[in-house]
Amino acid sequence: MDNNKVTIEELQALIQSKDVRRIRELFDEYNIVDMSDLVEQLQIEDVLFVFKMLKKNVTAEIFSYLTYDKQEELIEAFTGPEIQSMLDNLYSDDIVDFMEEMPANVVKRVLQNAKPNQRAEINKLLNYREDSCGSIMNTNYITLKRYESVLESIQRLRKLKNIDRALGYAYITDSKRQLIGSLSLKQLLYAEDNELIEDIMDTDLIVVKTDDDQEKAAQLIRKYDISTIPVVNDEGKIAGAITYDDILDVMEEETTEDIHKMSAITPTDKPYLETGVFAMYKHRIVWLLVLMIGATFTGNILLIFEDHLKTVAYLSVFIPMLMDAAGNAGNQSSTMITRALALGEVHLTDMLKIWFKEIRVAFLCGLTMGIVNFFRVIIFMGMVDVQTSIVVSVTVMCTVMVAKLIGCTLPMVAEKLGFDPAVMAGPLITTLVDVVALLIYLGLASVFLL
Amino acid sequence: MDNNKVTIEELQALIQSKDVRRIRELFDEYNIVDMSDLVEQLQIEDVLFVFKMLKKNVTAEIFSYLTYDKQEELIEAFTGPEIQSMLDNLYSDDIVDFMEEMPANVVKRVLQNAKPNQRAEINKLLNYREDSCGSIMNTNYITLKRYESVLESIQRLRKLKNIDRALGYAYITDSKRQLIGSLSLKQLLYAEDNELIEDIMDTDLIVVKTDDDQEKAAQLIRKYDISTIPVVNDEGKIAGAITYDDILDVMEEETTEDIHKMSAITPTDKPYLETGVFAMYKHRIVWLLVLMIGATFTGNILLIFEDHLKTVAYLSVFIPMLMDAAGNAGNQSSTMITRALALGEVHLTDMLKIWFKEIRVAFLCGLTMGIVNFFRVIIFMGMVDVQTSIVVSVTVMCTVMVAKLIGCTLPMVAEKLGFDPAVMAGPLITTLVDVVALLIYLGLASVFLL
Repeated sequence: MDNNKVTIEELQALIQSKDVRRIRELFDEYNIVDMSDLVEQLQIEDVLFVFKMLKKNVTAEIFSYLTYDKQEELIEAFTGPEIQSMLDNLYSDDIVDFMEEMPANVVKRVLQNAKPNQRAEINKLLNYREDSCGSIMNTNYITLKRYESVLESIQRLRKLKNIDRALGYAYITDSKRQLIGSLSLKQLLYAEDNELIEDIMDTDLIVVKTDDDQEKAAQLIRKYDISTIPVVNDEGKIAGAITYDDILDVMEEETTEDIHKMSAITPTDKPYLETGVFAMYKHRIVWLLVLMIGATFTGNILLIFEDHLKTVAYLSVFIPMLMDAAGNAGNQSSTMITRALALGEVHLTDMLKIWFKEIRVAFLCGLTMGIVNFFRVIIFMGMVDVQTSIVVSVTVMCTVMVAKLIGCTLPMVAEKLGFDPAVMAGPLITTLVDVVALLIYLGLASVFLL
Repeated sequence: MDNNKVTIEELQALIQSKDVRRIRELFDEYNIVDMSDLVEQLQIEDVLFVFKMLKKNVTAEIFSYLTYDKQEELIEAFTGPEIQSMLDNLYSDDIVDFMEEMPANVVKRVLQNAKPNQRAEINKLLNYREDSCGSIMNTNYITLKRYESVLESIQRLRKLKNIDRALGYAYITDSKRQLIGSLSLKQLLYAEDNELIEDIMDTDLIVVKTDDDQEKAAQLIRKYDISTIPVVNDEGKIAGAITYDDILDVMEEETTEDIHKMSAITPTDKPYLETGVFAMYKHRIVWLLVLMIGATFTGNILLIFEDHLKTVAYLSVFIPMLMDAAGNAGNQSSTMITRALALGEVHLTDMLKIWFKEIRVAFLCGLTMGIVNFFRVIIFMGMVDVQTSIVVSVTVMCTVMVAKLIGCTLPMVAEKLGFDPAVMAGPLITTLVDVVALLIYLGLASVFLL
């Protein structure tokens, strides 16, 4: 609500004058995310100065919001005990997050200064495959006992160290650490003091495994409207939990990947401004080259029909329009199907339904385009004869229809074969339907215009 | 964890044999989302039968997971009191959700059967602009009193009706209903019994207004890693709150919209299979026609250069490849910038940085493409003379560079002018850079090949 944010100049002035009391007040008063934005801009000595006067859980939270560059600088400047206390106060998923991005020497420095149990925990987490549920899960979950009463549980939780860093869900395990139930802290708060945990816990558990893909967790959290999903290992023992905020990040990453693939860019996971020129070049040139080589086909088709192109007046004039129309029509269908597949709105079993729908949509689009094109040519390109206009219009109609069918089929085929449908959408469809458009056009022209 | 889900046949058999006890057990045992999937497939009489034997809060939850078609059928089949009790047990945002999709007669029927206070509440919520924070907020929030102790608060909350439907955050207001603080139920649970709410509440409030765009709530929830954001009216009084699960939906909708716009489809908000053929036709044909009319330019350019195309051997053979290369290159840049703008990774103030980066990437891509193209032509299209190959290769290089610069500039210009950058990406870029590619190609050809 408070729009009068602190400025970086004010903070620097307070650091200059060593106004410890006011600095502590500031970090207490303003949102930690906004304050982290300011800390990001400070010199490293100033950050260390500020960190020394704040509570350890506050500095840990700030640390988790800094950029990887700043985190690296800080780790290098920290003393051993400072690293240890930072690790003590960070969420486990935040530790993995920054450790994955640090160079080897920094990782080594962190592990050397970690307590043995911390080191074991971090190593375990770092060993999960990237993008697996294990790699993004949080291990600061709470366990409740099934035969404990609500009051006993609450009293026990309140005494735990670092309890405010724990998740909003509690898990109940049996004697073999098998997960048997879950309970939100909201449910715990509203239950009667003397009820047993066992009687109020949820037993219809939605879980993922440590080596499941993170996308699975995202889908389940969305489908079941839950804020937290427990992660179990192969033996069904609880290993951690994934929360909605990590899922927001996962969803955004996956969508960016899909969008980039649809535009023939190999996926990156760095923000635009943080990606170097050469890295960007690499991510783009591969597909550009593949697609250019692919265009050898369209070139060869035109080579074969070169005589026609020279004999029949205005024949080549319509090639760009036909290619664009086909590309756009195919792209629309492939994009809709790819997105619907990604959202789980359609499945492979819907293939026939999709075809039937697309055929009708394609017919309507093709017919409209053909008719409009006929009048477009007559009105704007008067010198073109009626016969050519008709051939062009029929070609528009046919290519739009064929392009749409190819566009809706390829992503499904890709999904079926275990490829990523997103790669099939966009430019690849365009190149393919270009070939089809040219063949239909020059085929029809050979028959009717020669 | 339980993969042995109930089948629709089992459920139907239980309904046939009127096995009330077992049906109740099923709905208790299995996840409500999965059970809703089954209810969706039942005949309407069976749904009514099942609803009669379940608790009202359970039927309300199931109702919120059904498709709009099923909801409409149910409302029409419900008696007045049934509608009333359904409204009593639904979350306010779920009510608005389905009311917005119902035809006028169903809306009327619901409002007629609502209690006066329900009716006023629903009307108020329905009046918020679609996609505004007011339209997706939940009004089932809890208010705490600043001078109450933790124990008093918990005891008071436990006595409230429908408390299990309330959100995970509580809000604290002053005597004028102005929002002054927030508290998660987790914080409440872990605080000491005798602490005052005032002393433990958070006062660095992140809020949105009822008429803010829902995307603003999504951005803040992501930025500040919070699960719930309070919504206030113009006078700063609390009106409701938006939760992470609504934000997941908002993010998905907005992304689908962006992806569709990038592929020249006017946005829809219905899932693929629920959208009718004619609606789908309408969403696609507009852009297809606009882009086809736009292609009149490329046609006219070719008309002007018709004599060249006939005189110089193989000139028209390379037009498809050049257009595709330009379109792909432009598309890559426009997509990256559009997505980065949507994620807030880049801003208008970064314009110069972006240009400088894109110019270098464009140069590298253009150079590579030009060189590879030269050898591609020499190797695969032997009949083409070296001079033509060189002109084509230089054209590839120039058009890729120009296309990339246009591609990165247009989305920024759109953003600056208040248009949606996504519309600028994709097909519109393609049509535009086609014209540029042809002009460069035929211009160079006139100079060097005639």
